[in-house]
Amino acid sequence: MSQVYERVALIGLGLIAGSMALAMRRAGLAGEIVGTARSAETRAIAGELGLCDRITETSAEAVKGADLVVLCVPVGAMGAVAAEIAPHLAPGCTVSDVGSVKKAVIDAVGPHLPEHVHFVPAHPLAGTEHSGPRSGFAELFENRWCLIVPAEGTPEAPVARLRALWEGMGALVDTMEAEHHDLVLAVTSHTPHLIAYTMVGVADDLRRVTDSEVIKYSAAGFRDFTRIAASDPTMWRDVFLNNKEATLEILGRFTEELFALQRAIRKGDGAHLFDYFTRTRAIRRGIIQAGQDTDAPDFGRSGKKT
Amino acid sequence: MSQVYERVALIGLGLIAGSMALAMRRAGLAGEIVGTARSAETRAIAGELGLCDRITETSAEAVKGADLVVLCVPVGAMGAVAAEIAPHLAPGCTVSDVGSVKKAVIDAVGPHLPEHVHFVPAHPLAGTEHSGPRSGFAELFENRWCLIVPAEGTPEAPVARLRALWEGMGALVDTMEAEHHDLVLAVTSHTPHLIAYTMVGVADDLRRVTDSEVIKYSAAGFRDFTRIAASDPTMWRDVFLNNKEATLEILGRFTEELFALQRAIRKGDGAHLFDYFTRTRAIRRGIIQAGQDTDAPDFGRSGKKT
Repeated sequence: MSQVYERVALIGLGLIAGSMALAMRRAGLAGEIVGTARSAETRAIAGELGLCDRITETSAEAVKGADLVVLCVPVGAMGAVAAEIAPHLAPGCTVSDVGSVKKAVIDAVGPHLPEHVHFVPAHPLAGTEHSGPRSGFAELFENRWCLIVPAEGTPEAPVARLRALWEGMGALVDTMEAEHHDLVLAVTSHTPHLIAYTMVGVADDLRRVTDSEVIKYSAAGFRDFTRIAASDPTMWRDVFLNNKEATLEILGRFTEELFALQRAIRKGDGAHLFDYFTRTRAIRRGIIQAGQDTDAPDFGRSGKKT
Repeated sequence: MSQVYERVALIGLGLIAGSMALAMRRAGLAGEIVGTARSAETRAIAGELGLCDRITETSAEAVKGADLVVLCVPVGAMGAVAAEIAPHLAPGCTVSDVGSVKKAVIDAVGPHLPEHVHFVPAHPLAGTEHSGPRSGFAELFENRWCLIVPAEGTPEAPVARLRALWEGMGALVDTMEAEHHDLVLAVTSHTPHLIAYTMVGVADDLRRVTDSEVIKYSAAGFRDFTRIAASDPTMWRDVFLNNKEATLEILGRFTEELFALQRAIRKGDGAHLFDYFTRTRAIRRGIIQAGQDTDAPDFGRSGKKT
């Protein structure tokens, strides 16, 4: 793999930025990797791990001379970071991000950026329930999708270059419009996370079933929910505040369907339940055929391979 | 491990019975394992896999001379099977089951059984999204809980013997009252499954997001839901029809909490969301500390160990 950017600045050094640093280095995609984070502790850990070639105290310093700047902070913090770095961006540099919502990020970041840079928002659909600089690993993006959402009028060259970077890190790349991205993610990520958080909250709250019972007997299904409900609270707060419309729409659909199933249970309508549960099996098969999950039982936790 | 029963009859040869056969054989827990299933195809597959020492065409035949009979059929089929085997049960034999609900099974099975047998219902909290005789494996119960729900007045000896069998297969054993069991499982299993089925149904139904988008981008969280929504439809239909009250109670709580979070999103109440998402992290830590799940990111799918 050959170098795609001469100097990449990573603003924020959590799971995604840490994984990007490791993946870029492994494939020799960046001449120099500069990183920064608001917290001194995060900067110290990143330094200790050797994630970057250079760590700066401020974002303004980090972006100097970079031909790629990637905002890897929670969605709600992106506007302020953009305002801070704007005066220091090199002409012709590309500014990108890794935020889980795109329309709100474009609205928050876009207005701050000078005309002499290219803004190419992106969203790698990869992550784990862990967060912070220690949680990064070079393989995170392998065979996962990265959605690039170029602003209207962006020339092809900077988009193609960012695509080459993500492909170099092992990702599959698609481009998409911001609004559609936000709806797709409301279905595949945001609503599932909200529901998982809710179910875990209910279990925690129930006085007649103790926490220790919930924990001991979680293997019956519940523990899958707890994994995604263990994700970073700041990141997810910002996702919901910034993808309000699409999330509320999908939640509305979800509640409607849930009520229909609830009524079927109350009325003892076994045929309705059976048909519904049969239909949902097909989607799982599609995901496995597309290589987006393992077919090993229990995600392979059990040790049995198929 | 020494032999616990001389002859074990498994009625139904799906994931659980298949795994029991393999686990019992591995540890030498049963002198002879006899199996039966309603479908000729299932019997043929079980025969080909060598799951049992002997396979019979009928349940009546299978239970003859057995000192343990385990009903491994969907909850809705247990009453009919009990009626069929009752006249053929040996005096002093123990009848157990592996159903996911207990009160309904006790009500359906109990009345058919003669006084000269012991009825000791049980529920191993183990399973995968796969079903059928080919899906069984000897390690399924290792470090998983099996809940034993003895009927009132059952002597201690048959309960202790069944416990020894489950412990011999690697399980941890607790005893519990039927009604409490059904409530605990409504929280840790039944409601999570219903919610997962619903979310997958919503995704499948949405015209503005294509199935292929849902599949490609599922790694963002949705795929965890599809795993449990790929479970056996007959089994789950019967669970909901037979644990109606507790499931509807927990669903009510779930909807209430979901509406509160939905309102917080609509009103932009970030503090409410942040607090909620922080609280749910603790439960995940408890589950990992209790050895009921892996702390490897993404259930270890990514290949990164912690």
